[in-house]
Amino acid sequence: MDRDEAVRRLTGAKVGSIATVRPDGSPHVVPFVFAALDEDDALRIYWCVDDKPKRSRELQRLVNIRAHPAVEVEVNRYDDDWTELWWVRASGLAREVTAVEEGERALAALAAKYPPYAEHPPSGPIIAIQVDRVTGWAARANGLS
Amino acid sequence: MDRDEAVRRLTGAKVGSIATVRPDGSPHVVPFVFAALDEDDALRIYWCVDDKPKRSRELQRLVNIRAHPAVEVEVNRYDDDWTELWWVRASGLAREVTAVEEGERALAALAAKYPPYAEHPPSGPIIAIQVDRVTGWAARANGLS
Repeated sequence: MDRDEAVRRLTGAKVGSIATVRPDGSPHVVPFVFAALDEDDALRIYWCVDDKPKRSRELQRLVNIRAHPAVEVEVNRYDDDWTELWWVRASGLAREVTAVEEGERALAALAAKYPPYAEHPPSGPIIAIQVDRVTGWAARANGLS
Repeated sequence: MDRDEAVRRLTGAKVGSIATVRPDGSPHVVPFVFAALDEDDALRIYWCVDDKPKRSRELQRLVNIRAHPAVEVEVNRYDDDWTELWWVRASGLAREVTAVEEGERALAALAAKYPPYAEHPPSGPIIAIQVDRVTGWAARANGLS
């Protein structure tokens, strides 16, 4: 799968999984909603700490990122017909967004993608992942169809 | 979400995401198919290296597990109605299955869950994750509904 197709599938996915590394070196993975922006030849994935019930778990991700900024994100399609399977993975470094203008663009992208965010904008820290590698796999392109 | 409900949802999920840690300490996450067996108060998740097109990527997971046996697995349901969201995460230590009887039970469980495996049993190494912690979250149980 070429980069453009991988970025297209990543951008269109409603949910992904984000893997981080805990300070003790063990892996942590949790689903998340995100907006991917591919601008100026730089692919960035934004997500935001949102609702209170998830706050303690979201904070674990922030703790992890401060200790180990390298993260990996994955989106996939599952189907009982395995010729329909595909996935896209993106890895890079995560950082908290501090620039006001960048934060506003990230929130706008999240609100445009997710109606619940348009109704109730998330108020927590915004995280950006500067993607340095994106790869994709599809069964149909690999001889399984 | 109590343990029984978390195990029920994990067991029923057709696809999960497995996070491992590369030898260099960065996280790795990829979708996978699996069978979860909850026996004798021990929860184990089995998966198998299967088709050749994915072999190089599957092997990355084996390389990671040999360096860092701690892994985490996650399954989730996404829906545009965010009151329907839930996820289950399971963490533990991964090991290659070497006992013939355990390997046969794992393959039988995989074949029972996935028809493509019943038709074409996977022939690669079988990995067991001895789960030491399983947690779940559902929006409906957390005041979002």
